[in-house]
Amino acid sequence: MNFNLTQIPERHPKPRKAGITMVMDKGLSVNEARNFMSVAHPHVDIVKLGFGTSFVTPNLEEKLEVYASYDIPVYFGGTLFEAFLIRNQFDDYIAVCKNFGIKYMEVSDGSITIPHTEKCGYIEKLTAHGTVLSEVGSKDAAHIIPPYKWIELMRAELSAGATYVIAEAREGGNVGIYRGSGEVREGLVQEILTQIPGERILWEAPQKEQQLYFIELLGCNVNLGNIAPTEVLPLEAMRIGLRGDTFHLFLDKATAQ
Amino acid sequence: MNFNLTQIPERHPKPRKAGITMVMDKGLSVNEARNFMSVAHPHVDIVKLGFGTSFVTPNLEEKLEVYASYDIPVYFGGTLFEAFLIRNQFDDYIAVCKNFGIKYMEVSDGSITIPHTEKCGYIEKLTAHGTVLSEVGSKDAAHIIPPYKWIELMRAELSAGATYVIAEAREGGNVGIYRGSGEVREGLVQEILTQIPGERILWEAPQKEQQLYFIELLGCNVNLGNIAPTEVLPLEAMRIGLRGDTFHLFLDKATAQ
Amino acid sequence: MNFNLTQIPERHPKPRKAGITMVMDKGLSVNEARNFMSVAHPHVDIVKLGFGTSFVTPNLEEKLEVYASYDIPVYFGGTLFEAFLIRNQFDDYIAVCKNFGIKYMEVSDGSITIPHTEKCGYIEKLTAHGTVLSEVGSKDAAHIIPPYKWIELMRAELSAGATYVIAEAREGGNVGIYRGSGEVREGLVQEILTQIPGERILWEAPQKEQQLYFIELLGCNVNLGNIAPTEVLPLEAMRIGLRGDTFHLFLDKATAQ
Repeated sequence: MNFNLTQIPERHPKPRKAGITMVMDKGLSVNEARNFMSVAHPHVDIVKLGFGTSFVTPNLEEKLEVYASYDIPVYFGGTLFEAFLIRNQFDDYIAVCKNFGIKYMEVSDGSITIPHTEKCGYIEKLTAHGTVLSEVGSKDAAHIIPPYKWIELMRAELSAGATYVIAEAREGGNVGIYRGSGEVREGLVQEILTQIPGERILWEAPQKEQQLYFIELLGCNVNLGNIAPTEVLPLEAMRIGLRGDTFHLFLDKATAQ
Repeated sequence: MNFNLTQIPERHPKPRKAGITMVMDKGLSVNEARNFMSVAHPHVDIVKLGFGTSFVTPNLEEKLEVYASYDIPVYFGGTLFEAFLIRNQFDDYIAVCKNFGIKYMEVSDGSITIPHTEKCGYIEKLTAHGTVLSEVGSKDAAHIIPPYKWIELMRAELSAGATYVIAEAREGGNVGIYRGSGEVREGLVQEILTQIPGERILWEAPQKEQQLYFIELLGCNVNLGNIAPTEVLPLEAMRIGLRGDTFHLFLDKATAQ
Repeated sequence: MNFNLTQIPERHPKPRKAGITMVMDKGLSVNEARNFMSVAHPHVDIVKLGFGTSFVTPNLEEKLEVYASYDIPVYFGGTLFEAFLIRNQFDDYIAVCKNFGIKYMEVSDGSITIPHTEKCGYIEKLTAHGTVLSEVGSKDAAHIIPPYKWIELMRAELSAGATYVIAEAREGGNVGIYRGSGEVREGLVQEILTQIPGERILWEAPQKEQQLYFIELLGCNVNLGNIAPTEVLPLEAMRIGLRGDTFHLFLDKATAQ
């Protein structure tokens, strides 16, 4: 971008379907969102307002306008969806999204238990109101889902109309597709990928080592989520081989010698 | 706030005596303080200028004006008080606070050793100049204070005029009421609470798991301190059950099913 | 600075050759750089644009102007130098630096292997274009360099014209002079210091415990690098004994009693 370097892998241009960076905004102020966008907008595809922080954020509309001015869709964290659902306020949730001009919606069951057909029903209903991301995986570390079940759930949710299925990692990166230590459950990830197209999965990968794992496995245009605003540029550099960790990944053999 | 959700626990309105969030500012610029306040002011009760950072911060007066414009009291970290004290500059300390319009003062002995009656004397003297917070607990991990002693110290400091006693955790959250791992010394905390009213204790809880522990134990209106500016909104969401960790905490039984 | 305190150790005034704080900017926006400088400029000596982030940063020139307006030199992370070098674009690297008005340059071999005489050749060539910092140490945790070799490399690179040699720590602080745990390889550091003047070494020390180690070993005017922008004021307070960790370090014996 700023200079010419050969052998830089090609990122899909925006707006893109794959190679997505989803950022978690846990309570930026309007000016902070402005500053963030001014430097990160070419590298950000979707912004999530983490869990229920949108409920307690002053000047929310003004912040949404900042993201809108960069054509970056915003959605509420799945925990907020679940908070409406468990209170029997599903219709209110739709109304709130409409009020705030929110056109991306997450359907998740990280904190609640609902029959899967019911979950798919919410996905289907919400597709009438916008783009749906559905999340698979529990926030409860003790609740282990076996690989065949991950695949079954993901497949059904995509069929129900989800544009992406999100592989849950929790904000700290320590449940779902990760072990308590934050380490990737590699066997699980690889088995999922035998059945579900990688471009339809958004891997939550808040930690650097997790981002690295997925870039090595799936290339620079892997979909990664729960990225902190301050980590967007470091991630972008890593995606294209300009960080120590991925330095040799995209070089041809003659150069890498 | 931004939408209607049932079963949200009630936070005390500001200005409040309990349910306090004390934030540690370790060197925000004037504009950063402005941005921070613009989004966090409804959820911040007190700001501490961490340890001696106020000594090396340019434009300090201007930053103090930002906080003052939101009616949020500011105080200097206890380490600065101790730095004045050990140099025999206690009166200078009072003068500095007066000069900068600082009306909250922390009396601590985390890095120095002073007879406890002398410490209580400083608390008493400073109440003539403003609101005093006194801190119990050493910054030295090897210096273990038994529970009965914590209680004795806290009781005496409250009697001497402290408005709150702060339970020391150090910035990293790994001494005082926490083990080296950051884990809460639960027995200690519970024993303290048998004798000292919870509303008078300000628990330093920089780490999320620590905040969670105290919210579960004492409810949404627990006093928490050493919160990073960027963690104020996440904490507020957690306080009212809009983060995965506390999702079920405030739901009535019928809903939680 | 803001108040009078006795027994504060004397920091060298800027511009200084020793006592340097080098900050890693991993993608600040122009406004963020402005805010950062407004509060940290008296305490920052050099800014590094971390690894290849400068490649993907919009408005780079404008950000460089911010740093220039405070007379703070900026350089590109060593990984970018290596990225040009491995692609046979060394001359392009010089041109890019010239274009952007960059007058500090890092020569490193953290991700690539080059004969040491060749590395020294690059150092020598670049001294014609500005101030050179050369880095010793691999980013590869498995690649252990014995102490005598560190000394040999550092000596040769200083002879070749480097103004400082940087002791590699990686951003996370877990290779080079540190163990995987982030702990300092003390024997290595002390052996290096028997042969290489401390003022010519810039210790990468992103973690607080690492900064503390070097301040205790070498005093308040030690050169420290890879400091996060938000940690500059906390570090400055620690350098002069106004943080719990270094509270007693600079007090005379009578006071410290």
